Formats: sequence, structure tokens, C-alpha cells
Amino acid sequence: VLVVDRDPGRIGTPAPAFGLSEKLYENERGQITKAEVRAISLSKLQPWRRSVVWDVGAGSGSVSIEVAGLMPRGTVYAVEDAAAQLAVLRRNLGRHPRENVRVVEGTAPAALAGLEPPDAVFVGGAGRELHGVMCAASAAIQPGGGLVANFAQLESLALWQAVAARTGWPAEVVQVSIARGASIGDGTRLAALNPVFVCTLERPEEPSL
Amino acid sequence: VLVVDRDPGRIGTPAPAFGLSEKLYENERGQITKAEVRAISLSKLQPWRRSVVWDVGAGSGSVSIEVAGLMPRGTVYAVEDAAAQLAVLRRNLGRHPRENVRVVEGTAPAALAGLEPPDAVFVGGAGRELHGVMCAASAAIQPGGGLVANFAQLESLALWQAVAARTGWPAEVVQVSIARGASIGDGTRLAALNPVFVCTLERPEEPSL
Amino acid sequence: VLVVDRDPGRIGTPAPAFGLSEKLYENERGQITKAEVRAISLSKLQPWRRSVVWDVGAGSGSVSIEVAGLMPRGTVYAVEDAAAQLAVLRRNLGRHPRENVRVVEGTAPAALAGLEPPDAVFVGGAGRELHGVMCAASAAIQPGGGLVANFAQLESLALWQAVAARTGWPAEVVQVSIARGASIGDGTRLAALNPVFVCTLERPEEPSL
Amino acid sequence: VLVVDRDPGRIGTPAPAFGLSEKLYENERGQITKAEVRAISLSKLQPWRRSVVWDVGAGSGSVSIEVAGLMPRGTVYAVEDAAAQLAVLRRNLGRHPRENVRVVEGTAPAALAGLEPPDAVFVGGAGRELHGVMCAASAAIQPGGGLVANFAQLESLALWQAVAARTGWPAEVVQVSIARGASIGDGTRLAALNPVFVCTLERPEEPSL
Repeated sequence: VLVVDRDPGRIGTPAPAFGLSEKLYENERGQITKAEVRAISLSKLQPWRRSVVWDVGAGSGSVSIEVAGLMPRGTVYAVEDAAAQLAVLRRNLGRHPRENVRVVEGTAPAALAGLEPPDAVFVGGAGRELHGVMCAASAAIQPGGGLVANFAQLESLALWQAVAARTGWPAEVVQVSIARGASIGDGTRLAALNPVFVCTLERPEEPSL
Repeated sequence: VLVVDRDPGRIGTPAPAFGLSEKLYENERGQITKAEVRAISLSKLQPWRRSVVWDVGAGSGSVSIEVAGLMPRGTVYAVEDAAAQLAVLRRNLGRHPRENVRVVEGTAPAALAGLEPPDAVFVGGAGRELHGVMCAASAAIQPGGGLVANFAQLESLALWQAVAARTGWPAEVVQVSIARGASIGDGTRLAALNPVFVCTLERPEEPSL
Repeated sequence: VLVVDRDPGRIGTPAPAFGLSEKLYENERGQITKAEVRAISLSKLQPWRRSVVWDVGAGSGSVSIEVAGLMPRGTVYAVEDAAAQLAVLRRNLGRHPRENVRVVEGTAPAALAGLEPPDAVFVGGAGRELHGVMCAASAAIQPGGGLVANFAQLESLALWQAVAARTGWPAEVVQVSIARGASIGDGTRLAALNPVFVCTLERPEEPSL
Repeated sequence: VLVVDRDPGRIGTPAPAFGLSEKLYENERGQITKAEVRAISLSKLQPWRRSVVWDVGAGSGSVSIEVAGLMPRGTVYAVEDAAAQLAVLRRNLGRHPRENVRVVEGTAPAALAGLEPPDAVFVGGAGRELHGVMCAASAAIQPGGGLVANFAQLESLALWQAVAARTGWPAEVVQVSIARGASIGDGTRLAALNPVFVCTLERPEEPSL
């Protein structure tokens, strides 16, 4: 019953696909969440329980696209400021159409100000604004919501730990190290991807009165 | 709009949840696919594209349950022969009800004989029968289907490579190494899980005439 | 020509042995630098270039013993304050006699005050005093000397990065993840050791006038 | 007392240096045992107990040079057949002079035929001849001797397991995954090296009559 549209300009990924190969997304100089790390990050984000998700530093849009497919009645705000990345993101949305992704052009945290309050936030890239983004996101997240962040930098991890400690919310750090089999000659070598820290904060439900 | 049923005897996991914490499943002596490895394995299995999935060596049932949630109109056959595991599996199905999981009591590969031909097979555990299971599964898989196996043992990996070479199908090996932050004293130590090989075979579509 | 003394009370490890199995050392509740991590840490410490080495938080003494064997004309100060660890350390020195190891009973950094200035320092354990130990060590290290520290905790790593930045010395972080083959049934499973950060600071030589 | 000769054509590495940075060795297209893997492999080879070591597929010579420094009264046979590698190896021996390294030009296993029987063998590269090399090496190793091999390929590991099983000697597999801190912008990212299997076989001592 699955009809895969082979038109190269439109893959028509069936929802709820997740953890798709990077080859199915255009990317800007290799800047894309790797398939396996994306699968884990989405599982921590739990989109099936969410209705409003912010994807801050959306980059190529692979996370926004897959989150959107996993919460078809919710809305994903894909926040990105780099023009080249925005072009890539829009082309990826063209290939994997998701009507519930809203692209927000602008720099976080300022660009987050007017958005619907989220019940989950994904931070895939925030660069120098990471601290501000983490603070804004944790202030906006609704009770019962979650914040998932991917870090390659040790300094970002330390900063996240500081913000996590301040919230007092249950926190989880997982380091993900992936090595993919690559053919060499007549054999298979394991080619390592750089390790990524997948960090999760869960804002507790408010106690009912 | 999400209503989570807090009755401890029935978690009522909303579909399409995946990569849930092991804590949400009962297990037999720690024998359960770890959450992060499960998320990756499911992404490779692509249940959203499938209608019949075999879970061979279903163990605690965590993979069957999550696959079933991701393909609500398909059927998952959870094949298991160990009585203690079957009891655990049934209790987990009680906690996470999935009407499209069929439990098959029996030892693979013999127990696979009468089942509907699958478009995807997951092999999480097969012990001494691994070779027979791999052969039976690869013989039964429909064109366009996939076979995903998790291995902890180096010997199983070698055996898989031999079967993979014989099929001639596109094959992928990914080694997944997870280290989880664990609190010690006033700090966080990374506690390593044992690495797992996630191996995928994809049977090509038949060329149309 | 090698004569290995099989007297269980005295192994008589030939210098310059390094990276010996943990089984050859007594340890206190598994608290011992793992063989592979020890081999790497010693290579970064470069004992063959040193004459005075401090081993702060010497624990079971495995690092002190191996450093001493690699710099037979130098002196190793093994600093430890826990009585149980000191007893283990002394028994290990009995098994692997090294005349150039001096055991210093006391708590670092205070216990470091009177010692000969080191040209290398190893920090294997320092607990709550880590910051003080790092500061005292980096203040005492001679030009051209090195400081190697092993961390399991993310917080310790962050603290080390802060101290490293303050010295301005060339710094290196290496994360070491080891998985050892373990027999299960008739196969071999990879059993992961917890990852360790091996961190090195090198104090530059003073410019000659 | 250490005099480091800064003449770039001759580093004059003090024995018993090991695990030196790859930067201190010339290499042919990045083909060199990484410093941390070298430190571990040397610790398993135990050169301090050996008098004759074969380095089969010596490549850049980094292992031969460090082994030689750790067994100054023994002899290392560095076996290599590729002309470009031999040129690199000889230049490295010029920079790190070791009088007890003998370069053997030729293809293993044939080239091993006339050599002194070894009490340890290192196999760093053997390509298509790996099986023959493993068989020749295990046939030649003296009682009490050891064979250490580094593999990047899964197929080589499987082949090693088969040879290991045939000898019946105590065998050890260790997978080494290293991630090195690399500066990016104002932060530190972990850059993964590809995992390597370090495999050790130990021929038992002969029982005395």
C-alpha cells in the first residue's frame, strides 16, 4: 500500500519515518545530524506526546521534518538564521513535504520570543548563543515538556550541565559513539563518527491542586 | 489531548512511541534491547513502510511493541521459545497493549515456517540457531523488505557477514556504543553499555517486467 | 634470560613493564587504572624523560610502580591518604618491588608542599580536592614538565579545562573507550569499560636568555 | 640530564619512549599506528621480556622503533615489502636511530622464512597475506612468546579468531576507540579515530620434564 514517489524533487517520505540516512537530505558542508543520533534524539524528544516543538538551529531541517512526521497534528517551528542553511532547509522540506513545519527566520534566542509555548524543544545548534537559547527554552517549556540538545563540544556540555543544575529538573546525558562499516578493498572497516552528547531535561508536571 | 493512563498495570504507551526507557518494560535478567539501540534498530527496520514484521527471539517484547505502534495497520509476529521470556513478554504486552502483536510460541527457524511472509524481520536473539534463522528469514523476506539484526557477539557478526555476502543484497553494519551519565557523589560519570552491532540487509525490489 | 620469580608474594616485574593486567595488582573495590588506560597515560607522562614524578591519589600504586620502572634513576612520590588504599599500595609494592617509589601518606594538596619539585605529575584520583591539586601541581611543575590526569567525571573534565585555560600551556584531551572480548557460551562478547578522559598539559621550556 | 637533540634530521628519542605522537614520525598517506593504539599494543607485546621480535608489515616503522627502545639488548626485524613504505621507514630510523632494528625487505610470509625464531611478533599490516602470516608467525613463536595484531577490518578479526582457536592458546581481543579533543572556534570537539582491534595470543611455556 506504500506508494513511494520516485520523483527526485519530492521523496514523499511516509510519516512517521525517522532516522533516515543523511543521503536523503541535502546538507550544507556535512552539517546534519547523523541518522543514528537523530533516531536516538527523537526518541528522547518523544514527539508522539507533543503538540508544539521548537527546533532551534534547525540547520538542514532533518530533525524538524522527522519530528513533524511523528506528530502530524502538532506544529514544529524550525528556527534558523543562516541564509545558506535556510535555503537547504527549504529544499529539504520540498523533498519531504511536511505541512506542519513552520520555518522561522531569525537568530535565537531573540527569534523565539513570539512563538507558541513549546512542550518540547530540540537544540541541535546554537553556537555562541547556546546559553541564551537554553535559558529561553527552559523558561518557555510547558510542564511535562522536554528539552533535548545535541552537543559535540565539551564546553557546551559543561554549560548544559550548569543550566540543568539550575532548573533542578531530571536530567540525562548520553554519549553516542557510532562506527559504520565501510568497504575497503575486499573487507569492512569500522569508520567512526565523532561522538555526540545527547542531553535531555524533563520539566516535571505541575502538581494538581 | 494526550491522556496517559497512570494505572501501573497498563501504561497505555501512545503510538508511535519508540526508544522507551528499559524501565518501562519488565525484563528477564537484564535481557532487553537498550533504549538507544532500540531506537536505532527501529529506524533501520523502517516499520512505517511495512505490513508484516517478524521479531525473532522477541525476548521482553520491547521491539515488537514499538514496531507494532509504528505500523498500526500491520502485524508483528513475536517469536519466542523460552517460557520465562514468554511470561515477561505477555506482561509487557499487558502494560503496553498492542492489538497487532501476535505471540508465536516456538523455536526459530522451525516456528517461522507457517507465518505470513514478512516485509521486515528483526533478529534480536537467536543463539545457536542464528544461522538457520538468518537463512530462513532471508529466504522469506519479500522484495523491498529488510532484515535488521542486533549482535553482541563477534562470532555472530562474522556469521551475519557470510549470510549477507551470499544474498548479495545491500548490507550495512553499524556499531553502537552508548555511555550514559550516572551520578556518583556530586558528579557525573559515563557508564558504558556494551557495544552492539546493528546489521541491516535490504532485499532489492524486483525489477518490473 | 628473563627470570620470572613465580613466588606469589613477589612477582618481580621486570622494568620497564607497563600496562600490566589489573590481575597482577591487588586493588580496593576495583579502583585501579585499567591496563590499557594506564599504558596510554604513561605514554603521555613520558617517564623516560623525567627524574621526579608525583603520583597524586596513587590508589593501588599501579601507576607509581610502572612509572618507577620506566625511570629507574628517578624518584616517584606516591601520595595517598586513605588507609585502606595505602595498605593495598604497600602490598603491591611488595609484589612489584621498586626502590625508587616513596610513599607519602597525606592528603593532597597539603601533602605536596614539602616534596621535591616534579618534572611530571600524574593525577589519578583527587576527589573533592581536584581543583587544589591541579593548581598546586601546575604551580610546582618544572619547565618542560608535564601533567597527566585521568578523569571519569564530566565535572572534573570541565574543571581541568578551566585550569588548563588559565595556564595557557599546550593541552590535550583524549577520551579512551575500551571494550574487551569476554567469553559467553561459545562466543565472544565485547564488554565495555567506562570511558576515561586522559588529559595532558605540557609546561613549555623556559626560553634561554 | 636528558639531552634532546633538536636537529630535525635526528630526534634522538630517548629509550624507552613509547606511544609517541604520529607527528614525530613520517608516514605514507596516514598509514601509521596511532599513538594511543601503539602504547596499548606495545604493552601487550611486552618487549621488556623479549629478545627477538618480528614486526610484520612494519610500515612507517613506529612500532619497530619503539619496541627496539624497550628491548635494547634484543633485535627487532622490521619486515616490509612496499618500496614507498621502506623509504619512509628508513627515514624514520634516521630520525629515531635504533641500532637493533634490522630492516627485512620482502613479502611475508615468505620473507619470514630465514629469520631468527621470535619470542614475540607484531602484525600491524598484512593485507591479503594475513592468514599465511598468522600461521607462519604462530608456528615460529617460541614457548612463552606472544603475538599481537592490530586489525581495522572485521574480516581480519574473524580470520584471527579462527587461527586463535586453532592454536588453543590464551587469546585476548580488545577494541580500542579513541576520540581526541580538537579545537573548533572557541571550543573543543571530540574527533574520533577509527576503532582498532588489538588481538593478543600467548603461547604457553612448555612444561618442564
